[in-house]
Amino acid sequence: MSFPVAEEAIQNTTEEVEDIVDPWNVASTSDKGVDYDKLIRRFGSSKISPELIARIESIIKKPVHYFIRRGIFFSHRDLELILNAYEQKKPFFLYTGRGPSSEAMHLGHLIPFIMTKWLQDVFDVPLVIQMTDDEKFLWKDITIEDANRYAYENAKDIIACGFDPTKTFIFSDFDFMAQCPNFYRNICRIQKSVTFNQVKGIFGFTESDCIGKIAFPAIQAAPSVSSSFPFIFGEKLKQEFACLIPCAIDQDPYFRMTRDVAPRLNFPKPALMHSTFFPALQGAKSKMAASDTNSAIFLTDTPKQVKDKVNKHAFSGGKETIEEHRAKGGDCDVDVSYQYLRYFMEDDERLEQIRQDYSSGKLLTGELKKILIEVLQGLVAKHQERRKEITLDVVRQFMTPRQLNFRY
Amino acid sequence: MSFPVAEEAIQNTTEEVEDIVDPWNVASTSDKGVDYDKLIRRFGSSKISPELIARIESIIKKPVHYFIRRGIFFSHRDLELILNAYEQKKPFFLYTGRGPSSEAMHLGHLIPFIMTKWLQDVFDVPLVIQMTDDEKFLWKDITIEDANRYAYENAKDIIACGFDPTKTFIFSDFDFMAQCPNFYRNICRIQKSVTFNQVKGIFGFTESDCIGKIAFPAIQAAPSVSSSFPFIFGEKLKQEFACLIPCAIDQDPYFRMTRDVAPRLNFPKPALMHSTFFPALQGAKSKMAASDTNSAIFLTDTPKQVKDKVNKHAFSGGKETIEEHRAKGGDCDVDVSYQYLRYFMEDDERLEQIRQDYSSGKLLTGELKKILIEVLQGLVAKHQERRKEITLDVVRQFMTPRQLNFRY
Repeated sequence: MSFPVAEEAIQNTTEEVEDIVDPWNVASTSDKGVDYDKLIRRFGSSKISPELIARIESIIKKPVHYFIRRGIFFSHRDLELILNAYEQKKPFFLYTGRGPSSEAMHLGHLIPFIMTKWLQDVFDVPLVIQMTDDEKFLWKDITIEDANRYAYENAKDIIACGFDPTKTFIFSDFDFMAQCPNFYRNICRIQKSVTFNQVKGIFGFTESDCIGKIAFPAIQAAPSVSSSFPFIFGEKLKQEFACLIPCAIDQDPYFRMTRDVAPRLNFPKPALMHSTFFPALQGAKSKMAASDTNSAIFLTDTPKQVKDKVNKHAFSGGKETIEEHRAKGGDCDVDVSYQYLRYFMEDDERLEQIRQDYSSGKLLTGELKKILIEVLQGLVAKHQERRKEITLDVVRQFMTPRQLNFRY
Repeated sequence: MSFPVAEEAIQNTTEEVEDIVDPWNVASTSDKGVDYDKLIRRFGSSKISPELIARIESIIKKPVHYFIRRGIFFSHRDLELILNAYEQKKPFFLYTGRGPSSEAMHLGHLIPFIMTKWLQDVFDVPLVIQMTDDEKFLWKDITIEDANRYAYENAKDIIACGFDPTKTFIFSDFDFMAQCPNFYRNICRIQKSVTFNQVKGIFGFTESDCIGKIAFPAIQAAPSVSSSFPFIFGEKLKQEFACLIPCAIDQDPYFRMTRDVAPRLNFPKPALMHSTFFPALQGAKSKMAASDTNSAIFLTDTPKQVKDKVNKHAFSGGKETIEEHRAKGGDCDVDVSYQYLRYFMEDDERLEQIRQDYSSGKLLTGELKKILIEVLQGLVAKHQERRKEITLDVVRQFMTPRQLNFRY
């Protein structure tokens, strides 16, 4: 699993070019990035509508997270069924993941975890987090030892998001495979139900792909099945539990496949909540890559690095001159600083004021960047402080197979 | 892994039809079965020549097993390198396996284990035996629970062949995957080095095959790598050990693939010893199937069942009438009773006498069958007696990951 970012800009043509969204590529020809309404239609998922948000709020008796309110988590599959289960006091569990491709994570990688932590707190349910070190070994030019080490390092950043240790199980595929006999068994059940033709259609695999890649989708599918974790559920595992997966929408193909095979295997179909893609500093059309340290704010960046990166690289929706900007205003839809504030400024009113002021030209790009720099410096510093406390012993605690706490 | 048997007879045509030999099908148009010399040329393996046999005997200072002398193990890859290692007092290990497709095993299933036990005794080396319960689940219409249970039941028959518990590790894929982190890691290394195109070419997989089958060859390849079993070798595992695999020749494709990827992964290429196919009672052209109890002598058969099956079903190379038989003699090459004696009558001189007498017409089919019945009744009864002693506790002992005894 990985939180993806927009691919390098594609040449605009006169024809309408479809956005490319799959687990390894996200590419759009528009400065605004991917057309998410179109993507919902193409993927056949459902929009998180104002009505659905109202229903969630009436059930949890408080406002939804601003990620949902602002359309950062914008799409879903069967979220209603999870709400029904919750209302009927039937437990469910959360599942998300991370592809540990390098030692350092960037801001965008936090999005699914921030959402997931909120869901865990609100619904009081267990959570499993898959570190797909096997996937990263298969797809990238890294050793198993490095991929596995990144899994443990990244787990520290994930734990620093504040997950409840009594309700959260984190696992590396390489290690968990040798810890729980049910995991490989469920993987085989799924692998028996999916043909090469199907993964070719869903993921675009070719005959030149290695057989590890071809078989991998079952490994990302298996954690959506509660019986892969008998120790978590203990005696309560008389039947499979429902599963809700918060993830970036590029991961949807894995779970379309999972939902497709689930009925044949008597597994419940996992429900999903999809997020948009966090843009690169250079804008929604360019690629945010761990290899290009200037394309993203890393969780290891110093305050000065945060400031310099935003000032130098954050794509601006402002006008060429101050005079023109004052007269015509900036374009929030393409302005990366404003977009980043949508993700990380919790205060709705202040954000709306900034939007109005920037759009009207009252707020200049430099001023907007200054606000963002303060927000991000605060966020990154706080993260670093929390992460310092996360020792390898703490990680091992989260990664130990054990029974988790459950509301019902 | 499975010990295969000839597929249903193919219609003879005027064209020359190639024998079909792969891990799931063995079919020949000839009454004599597969043309093994041709197969050696097609597979690119080497014949176990009289010179090689002489070299083995000079090294081990005793005669080779009659399976080798009689050409039942007839082909090899790099057996010389194993002999070199042995002469240089470098240790190696043995690897063989079984696909546990049903609860009962038949006579043919014993061949690789009889050979392997002899090799273990002579060379005093550790042995790993893979029970591919995952393969059987993927290929057949059985549950994981049944495939796993068959693995334990079949292990009793294998242990009854007399393997040294201090030198033998037996494992079920489903269980071992959750016991040893190195196993899945080596599987992934191999899966990363093999493309769909390659397994399509080697195994004839198609796009309609499930992704479990497509990925499986790496699971049969991984046990040929000593680092998949760190506990066996302990501190001696400073570098990979050489591996010798005795198996029926239909399993060769798995290890051609393994040998192909080994150098890229710094794994030594496994050496191989290939056996011919044990014929069905109905002859080398027909199929020996666990589902057809009359096609094979099962290790669970009663003396009466052995007698009846041989008398009723064993394909005869004799002539239509006694007079014609006395005059022209029988054809040992197609006579199943004679062929079975080649596998199970240890006494060379007596076997040769029987061959001469049957070929000359002196020995009648009924008399030949009577000899075979006695041999098989004795063999099966002895096996059943030994198997009775093999409790589940004994199986668990063999299946416990642990350090094994080693000559060097």
